[in-house]
Amino acid sequence: MPELRKDPITGRWVIISSDRAKRPTDFIRESVHIKGTAMCPFCPGNEGKTPSEILAYGRSGAKDTPGWSLRVVPNKFPALGIEGGLDREGEGLFDRMNGIGAHEVIIETPEHQLTLATMPEKSLEETLWAYRDRMLDLKNDRRFRYILLFKNHGEAAGATVEHTHSQLIALPIVPKRVREEVDSSKHYYDEKERCIFCDMIRQEIETETRVILNNDHFIALAPYAPRFPFETWILPRQHSSAFEHMPTPNYRNLAKVLRDFLGRLDAALNFPSYNYVIHTSPIGEEINDHYHWHIEMMPKLTRVAGFEWGTGFYINPTPPEESARFLRGAK
Amino acid sequence: MPELRKDPITGRWVIISSDRAKRPTDFIRESVHIKGTAMCPFCPGNEGKTPSEILAYGRSGAKDTPGWSLRVVPNKFPALGIEGGLDREGEGLFDRMNGIGAHEVIIETPEHQLTLATMPEKSLEETLWAYRDRMLDLKNDRRFRYILLFKNHGEAAGATVEHTHSQLIALPIVPKRVREEVDSSKHYYDEKERCIFCDMIRQEIETETRVILNNDHFIALAPYAPRFPFETWILPRQHSSAFEHMPTPNYRNLAKVLRDFLGRLDAALNFPSYNYVIHTSPIGEEINDHYHWHIEMMPKLTRVAGFEWGTGFYINPTPPEESARFLRGAK
Repeated sequence: MPELRKDPITGRWVIISSDRAKRPTDFIRESVHIKGTAMCPFCPGNEGKTPSEILAYGRSGAKDTPGWSLRVVPNKFPALGIEGGLDREGEGLFDRMNGIGAHEVIIETPEHQLTLATMPEKSLEETLWAYRDRMLDLKNDRRFRYILLFKNHGEAAGATVEHTHSQLIALPIVPKRVREEVDSSKHYYDEKERCIFCDMIRQEIETETRVILNNDHFIALAPYAPRFPFETWILPRQHSSAFEHMPTPNYRNLAKVLRDFLGRLDAALNFPSYNYVIHTSPIGEEINDHYHWHIEMMPKLTRVAGFEWGTGFYINPTPPEESARFLRGAK
Repeated sequence: MPELRKDPITGRWVIISSDRAKRPTDFIRESVHIKGTAMCPFCPGNEGKTPSEILAYGRSGAKDTPGWSLRVVPNKFPALGIEGGLDREGEGLFDRMNGIGAHEVIIETPEHQLTLATMPEKSLEETLWAYRDRMLDLKNDRRFRYILLFKNHGEAAGATVEHTHSQLIALPIVPKRVREEVDSSKHYYDEKERCIFCDMIRQEIETETRVILNNDHFIALAPYAPRFPFETWILPRQHSSAFEHMPTPNYRNLAKVLRDFLGRLDAALNFPSYNYVIHTSPIGEEINDHYHWHIEMMPKLTRVAGFEWGTGFYINPTPPEESARFLRGAK
């Protein structure tokens, strides 16, 4: 019997269509294998093929030359422009503003052959530090309300350059999905004086069936009402409202958990494409008791069709208890 | 300069990234060409390969034999089950119910080679009648709150059977996206005593730049803040809150507009894949002054990546004024 489940944070219902249940092997299609290329704009020696760097770690040479361990550059084809005012205006019923924002690329390692799952833990930790550094810097720009960090891994997930990288977009408005989560958490907190994410973590640890990884600092779990097969959330165990305000040692802890999780994902699903996104508090609301920052990890295994777009209602053939069990056992 | 635009109904912002603007020819990739197959379960003679028919038009022979012009059957691999009670229950923080619902397939024509754009207008009109007949019938089942009609055309849009067909899913809850639209329209109406869609249609007719087709009964327009290149909405010109309550002659009028639009889409984009979905009032709220039913048409031209999933925020390289201009001029 299929099941309808509701996500307690967004109010979104999903169909867990377990009659159509699929094992991980049913999803194995397009594995991400790094081919390597002489023309890669993100490889050392090709620094001139990107806009000039904003940040580099481990730099031994001059700016925009080889000798770095991580490099942040503006996106060469940005979705938003950095110069100018917002010029907010109405057009009758409609509202618009200029597409002002930052669009940056975090080149996580000079090594073309590596991925987040295979790079040294130190590089993964540096990547998280770069996320933090860029967020803190961009927050000084009063035009911005939200900074989104995300990664597209593999062509099926929308990556256009093979060399492993993350992206950052700074926006003058808070995106709808984030706004909904924050408002809903606030509403819950006002009623109960508790964070809904903290409550969920407590319940999941007790239930156990949806927990993938769990240590003193972070938990990786399959959410109760996942939109996609093998969707996973990674959350700090202790309440924390902003990614960029984490205590220093936690970045290393997060790197460990992320690496462990991505290794399991590669093992269970044969190097799948995936997207992830960091959900953190909006600028100016960073310190609060109601919102709990987290990473949403979405392996790209199924095709999303008209039903999903038209309704915000998802059909997922894999119960989260199944996907958690496979990932716990992987590797 | 890119632009940020807000959809007045859902409150969703999109980036119209016109610096990356693409002409229709840039999108031409996977054309939908009907190959034809001896083993098609939807072709006449193969009626035994589907579950037994629920409805047939133009039937000359016995049930589940050839001699029909349109046929509705249960989906052989339904996402939801039709038998049983909902058994709503809580699990601590979480809410669930049984996955009760109907999942049906509308086989629009016996002719394998046809599409909605090439079939006789009469078949397209019959398709719309079948949508209406099945909605009216399923509304008698007190377990259901919403009936969703949608179509996936072409493999890239999620169609798994080539023979042209639509799908219907009856649900025990109102999907989130629809609930948002209805609530937001209600809020607008309470404030202004006007339907927001009627206001939008009036403004669009005055502005002209986003109108694709317009006759006495229906308008096809590129919405102000489209999520996807060439996204199009088709709406009745007069306020109408439920698809299934339209005056009789309007189904023929809608068939004409739909056919004209899809012909232009095929001409402009070389037979693209697409999804469409009908948004109408939820069951029990059919007659109202605030919600305006419509079709949302989404050609499948771009890949949606982590950014979109993570934020509900879309980057669209094609301004709607451009897509409307191309479609007005097509054919």
